[in-house]
Amino acid sequence: MMKELVEKIKKEGKVLPGDIVKVDSFINHQIDVDFMEKIGEEFYKLFKNEKVTKVLTIETSGILAACETAKRFKCKVVYGKKGNHKNQSNDFYETKVYSYTKGEEYLVKVSKDYISKDDNILIIDDFLANGAAVGGMIDIINKAGAKLLGVGIIIEKGFQKGGDELRKRGIKLESLAIIDSIDIDKKIIKFRGE
Amino acid sequence: MMKELVEKIKKEGKVLPGDIVKVDSFINHQIDVDFMEKIGEEFYKLFKNEKVTKVLTIETSGILAACETAKRFKCKVVYGKKGNHKNQSNDFYETKVYSYTKGEEYLVKVSKDYISKDDNILIIDDFLANGAAVGGMIDIINKAGAKLLGVGIIIEKGFQKGGDELRKRGIKLESLAIIDSIDIDKKIIKFRGE
Repeated sequence: MMKELVEKIKKEGKVLPGDIVKVDSFINHQIDVDFMEKIGEEFYKLFKNEKVTKVLTIETSGILAACETAKRFKCKVVYGKKGNHKNQSNDFYETKVYSYTKGEEYLVKVSKDYISKDDNILIIDDFLANGAAVGGMIDIINKAGAKLLGVGIIIEKGFQKGGDELRKRGIKLESLAIIDSIDIDKKIIKFRGE
Repeated sequence: MMKELVEKIKKEGKVLPGDIVKVDSFINHQIDVDFMEKIGEEFYKLFKNEKVTKVLTIETSGILAACETAKRFKCKVVYGKKGNHKNQSNDFYETKVYSYTKGEEYLVKVSKDYISKDDNILIIDDFLANGAAVGGMIDIINKAGAKLLGVGIIIEKGFQKGGDELRKRGIKLESLAIIDSIDIDKKIIKFRGE
């Protein structure tokens, strides 16, 4: 648990119907670049014993956290591109991801040029809820024959299934803040460990 | 002209039909985080006499350059969100942008919470060709009543109209590399100043 992040979510996060916590003042729309450096530093601390060769995320809102983390591992970032059109070429690893927020499926693709079986990959993303996006990234890592070292998440919705499913599979998951419940009427967010 | 960038485009850029230069090994898909720090440093040097209060870009591929620049101005980034659905609420500034690459129009929106008439804004983006995306950002800045200080572009396609149109309007435009022509057969990219 990153205390400063929890405080920032409490101060700036907006609770909306549908168990949504909007953090668009510092992550999702406006970006607090200084704070995101601290996020990168925190992920580095949590995974620093791993030999990370690449950080993987999906566009858009996890990109800066991924980059701030990658800097500290002195490696590059690859972000999966979203699209709806199946690629005709054989140059990409592709996977389908179901977005619960939008109620639709989209394709994520990663060029075979930028991820290989020699890579040791750390996944970074801003949110983890049902785990669909992370699941898609793991699928791509498997297709490439690369090694998954772990998953770093800024905000996990602990009352949804994604996090526990990853833990059950023995995947090293580090979430900087875990939300256990959201009271929409009182606008109260309850964090794990409080 | 940023010499190191020109060298990197020559070394890693791929020339594709339709005057496309793909730089997805370090900007557009894989991100070379160390190199993007240098890009941010370069933009800072070019605009450091301006009192920038916010850096504006559109998702996705300009975000890291925008963040690296904003850090040096000690300000925040706002990235315009792409979408197709007109917003019912009155919380956003919206503009239409025509994508020549995709041959379709999309909406870009920026929350009124994160850009105001008191802001002095620097626009940062990865590519400038016809100027549609930058034009959309200027429209949003105007709608917010904010002040546009200038535009920083990583790669300008000098043979397309966007750059010259901005210069004619008296807007301070700084492009780190300007491509004057692309020879698709010989795979040669000619840069301005060479």
